[in-house]
Amino acid sequence: PVASIDSSPISTDGATSLSKSPLARALAEFAGTFLICFAIYTVSTYGTVLYGINILLIAVLTGAAYAAATAVFSRFSGAHFNPAVTLAAVLTSRISWLDALLYLVAQVLGGIAAGAVAIAILPTTETVTAKAWLTYTINGFDTTSLSYLANSTLQQAGLSFGSTMAIVVEVVMSLLVVAAAIVTMREDGSALPNRTTAIGFAYGVAVAVAYPITGAGLNPVRSTGIALFAQGKGLTVEPLSQLWLFWICPLLAGAVVALVMLLSSTFSEMIAKNAM
Amino acid sequence: PVASIDSSPISTDGATSLSKSPLARALAEFAGTFLICFAIYTVSTYGTVLYGINILLIAVLTGAAYAAATAVFSRFSGAHFNPAVTLAAVLTSRISWLDALLYLVAQVLGGIAAGAVAIAILPTTETVTAKAWLTYTINGFDTTSLSYLANSTLQQAGLSFGSTMAIVVEVVMSLLVVAAAIVTMREDGSALPNRTTAIGFAYGVAVAVAYPITGAGLNPVRSTGIALFAQGKGLTVEPLSQLWLFWICPLLAGAVVALVMLLSSTFSEMIAKNAM
Amino acid sequence: PVASIDSSPISTDGATSLSKSPLARALAEFAGTFLICFAIYTVSTYGTVLYGINILLIAVLTGAAYAAATAVFSRFSGAHFNPAVTLAAVLTSRISWLDALLYLVAQVLGGIAAGAVAIAILPTTETVTAKAWLTYTINGFDTTSLSYLANSTLQQAGLSFGSTMAIVVEVVMSLLVVAAAIVTMREDGSALPNRTTAIGFAYGVAVAVAYPITGAGLNPVRSTGIALFAQGKGLTVEPLSQLWLFWICPLLAGAVVALVMLLSSTFSEMIAKNAM
Amino acid sequence: PVASIDSSPISTDGATSLSKSPLARALAEFAGTFLICFAIYTVSTYGTVLYGINILLIAVLTGAAYAAATAVFSRFSGAHFNPAVTLAAVLTSRISWLDALLYLVAQVLGGIAAGAVAIAILPTTETVTAKAWLTYTINGFDTTSLSYLANSTLQQAGLSFGSTMAIVVEVVMSLLVVAAAIVTMREDGSALPNRTTAIGFAYGVAVAVAYPITGAGLNPVRSTGIALFAQGKGLTVEPLSQLWLFWICPLLAGAVVALVMLLSSTFSEMIAKNAM
Repeated sequence: PVASIDSSPISTDGATSLSKSPLARALAEFAGTFLICFAIYTVSTYGTVLYGINILLIAVLTGAAYAAATAVFSRFSGAHFNPAVTLAAVLTSRISWLDALLYLVAQVLGGIAAGAVAIAILPTTETVTAKAWLTYTINGFDTTSLSYLANSTLQQAGLSFGSTMAIVVEVVMSLLVVAAAIVTMREDGSALPNRTTAIGFAYGVAVAVAYPITGAGLNPVRSTGIALFAQGKGLTVEPLSQLWLFWICPLLAGAVVALVMLLSSTFSEMIAKNAM
Repeated sequence: PVASIDSSPISTDGATSLSKSPLARALAEFAGTFLICFAIYTVSTYGTVLYGINILLIAVLTGAAYAAATAVFSRFSGAHFNPAVTLAAVLTSRISWLDALLYLVAQVLGGIAAGAVAIAILPTTETVTAKAWLTYTINGFDTTSLSYLANSTLQQAGLSFGSTMAIVVEVVMSLLVVAAAIVTMREDGSALPNRTTAIGFAYGVAVAVAYPITGAGLNPVRSTGIALFAQGKGLTVEPLSQLWLFWICPLLAGAVVALVMLLSSTFSEMIAKNAM
Repeated sequence: PVASIDSSPISTDGATSLSKSPLARALAEFAGTFLICFAIYTVSTYGTVLYGINILLIAVLTGAAYAAATAVFSRFSGAHFNPAVTLAAVLTSRISWLDALLYLVAQVLGGIAAGAVAIAILPTTETVTAKAWLTYTINGFDTTSLSYLANSTLQQAGLSFGSTMAIVVEVVMSLLVVAAAIVTMREDGSALPNRTTAIGFAYGVAVAVAYPITGAGLNPVRSTGIALFAQGKGLTVEPLSQLWLFWICPLLAGAVVALVMLLSSTFSEMIAKNAM
Repeated sequence: PVASIDSSPISTDGATSLSKSPLARALAEFAGTFLICFAIYTVSTYGTVLYGINILLIAVLTGAAYAAATAVFSRFSGAHFNPAVTLAAVLTSRISWLDALLYLVAQVLGGIAAGAVAIAILPTTETVTAKAWLTYTINGFDTTSLSYLANSTLQQAGLSFGSTMAIVVEVVMSLLVVAAAIVTMREDGSALPNRTTAIGFAYGVAVAVAYPITGAGLNPVRSTGIALFAQGKGLTVEPLSQLWLFWICPLLAGAVVALVMLLSSTFSEMIAKNAM
């Protein structure tokens, strides 16, 4: 089935290949990642602090943000916006290693820019501090798991959502997200027509599952962009100390998806040869 | 109209036939069913216990989970994920009986694996027991109907949602779900381009209707995967004792959809002949 | 632009014409209307009484129900499910008058069957009466406007949502719904590929706007199917006495959409001739 | 990549060019803008006052309203509905300056008509005044920021969401909205097949982010249509005095998107020449 991707029809947006300019590709990754992270950071700060935790809002918002950015930028860069997707794409030869590095840098800068702008515009006073805004937007586990923080009954019962649970949830849901991104990407890195909706559904589901436990990372850049600015703001645990988990889990998922795609491709070719 | 399916255009993902490897098809069914069930089990355990019953969240999550898994796996296995869909597919000759058996085993194992992982990661203490987590995720009726359990007024009024109501709701909504899956499947078992969204809408509607009554089965594997692990955990009624209803209703719906498709196909051919 | 519809590409489901059997077309209209109405009636009875009025749930559910039924049945009957759509289709020569009559009968029977089944399965006691279940599922205005019924402050303030407001809301939103249905229908009555999502979006918006005022009719059959069974159940106003509004408004919208389409078509042809 | 748009496949609705009649194009812009604004004004007046502020409802409703109107009217006018989109379209030569003026007038009239009808049907008494209905539907900032108005804790803490925050949120989110509209528009102004969903996702995200701060303008016409009728109704700040921000921000975003598209196009051509 992988081999048949090359013969796939023209994309709905009429583009069958990425932008030929590396600068355009990098800018698309930067801008898309910025928009996605900015949307997540704002809705999970003031949208959550003022109106209450709303899993469905965060899930739909995140799925729609990735989908909208995919619709806008896929013709330019293929719309990765996530180092785990870029890892899987480079391992399956959809993009070059040089492009992978370029995309990674653009994504990280996009996430950091979003964090910087979000922090800059949030008003604070002595009673409404940065900590108050940031509690539900960072990715964490154990005593910084979103449900633990929000639920005094769980705290008294001594129940928390530790690193094992966080790893399982982040890895399993990142598998869905990366698989949706890779299966809808042609071998030349361009997007198939069903990519926008597939991405939207996958991130929406993944956030609904992961948000109550970890705040829903699923993308190292989304976790990093806000952790940098939440560091030293008096949160229960410094977010950078837990950041490792939100890099390792999605990247592991990216590697696994790439491995399965490569095995499946090799296997298909073997069957095709035997059939001849 | 059924006869015209063969002439349908190339799929949006460029794949016009399933994976030629039975192993790949089985793994796709296993992985897709695992991801769907894992998403449902987690959101209807901690997502519901900690944040309250939210019909729209469960409905959107379930629809999006089936849709995302369909987008990812349809090129490999045709994306059944439900024995009722597999039954309708084999009865309408879209897949072979051998494949049907293979799919069934893969789906059951996927559901059980999802239940095992979900149970394994849920933290428990003496006050927060497995029973507390599992109440709103099992499929049941009568005194284990979700609305009965959640509503002390109903309990005092002696009002419950019995097996007749459960059967009507499960059969009618399974008809919609299986019809959406079969109508968007080519005669060779591969997916038509509109399959992802059709599946998402159908499961979303079906869950919104069925969840308050039965917890929304609609898929024997989704019911079985969690019932096995909720057995003997002190629930009001042991879930395995009510599991029969959640196998019979969807499979009945699958058989009815297949019958209607076959009659419609035969009828179309008769009209076509008479027209000549 | 209307003239160019004939040259439109093959549908995503591979069907370019409706079922040739009148029986199949009628059964498709009956089954689709039944499923849509059953979903609306159940979620706006027990889903609303037990879990509270939720505009977004009803809007998303209704949009998804029409979309799912459209995905399933469009290749058979063109997926009208609404006499207002059928009126616009027959006035713009998309279907014959005989088919329009057939569709109308099938739709009315589908709505009534859905009402009958919904009423039959709802459990009642002396304290939880049929009236309790039905309050938020009938279509009404003035003192049976949903918001008036649900809001004692409005009642004390002497404020209600009368027939003028109901007419404006129902006509304007029916215009959107019927326009979405007709613009995505080819001149031979078959569905264009974007029909499913267009229908889903249009009904979703229309319900979000109309539900707080009238309970969201938008379709005479949806209003009739439940009004027949809610008659004589002790509701504030007998629903059949207000049913006229929910037939006239959508049908008026259907006629207006047809008129605009015909004028637009005539106008386009005139311009095309002058250009020659 | 821009250059390749011309070779894009036929639209899903079979239309490859806009209506040839300027009157039809203008009426389509008027009707679409009217329907969108009417939906927003009603749901953010009675839907919000009676049922509480619901970010997700407003976001989904707005996204779905733009998407539904796009599905209906794109074959006639290209479905702009927003002066910022029209500005970007004319700057990138997708429509003529004459058409841009025509569209602007039609959009403004559509928004004003929607405001007039919404105001006309809202019932008022001495206790339920026009001010009560209009508080959450106007676009504002500082002391008329939606979150400030809704939250007495913020008011006591002296915290408000000022013009800088409003500008950042409105500009960034308008960039997403306009980019989605322009990238899915062919060089002749007609819509690409993925336009409906791209528009829906983009507006949905933008409203979720902007609504708590400014009430979500994103479209000068949406802000103007209700500001005119809310003027002199006793709101904290007269809405017309803050309207400048809701014209400047989206138009600025429109100009930026056009500039980026033009640079990208020029750059692509340079690369193409060098490659020869």
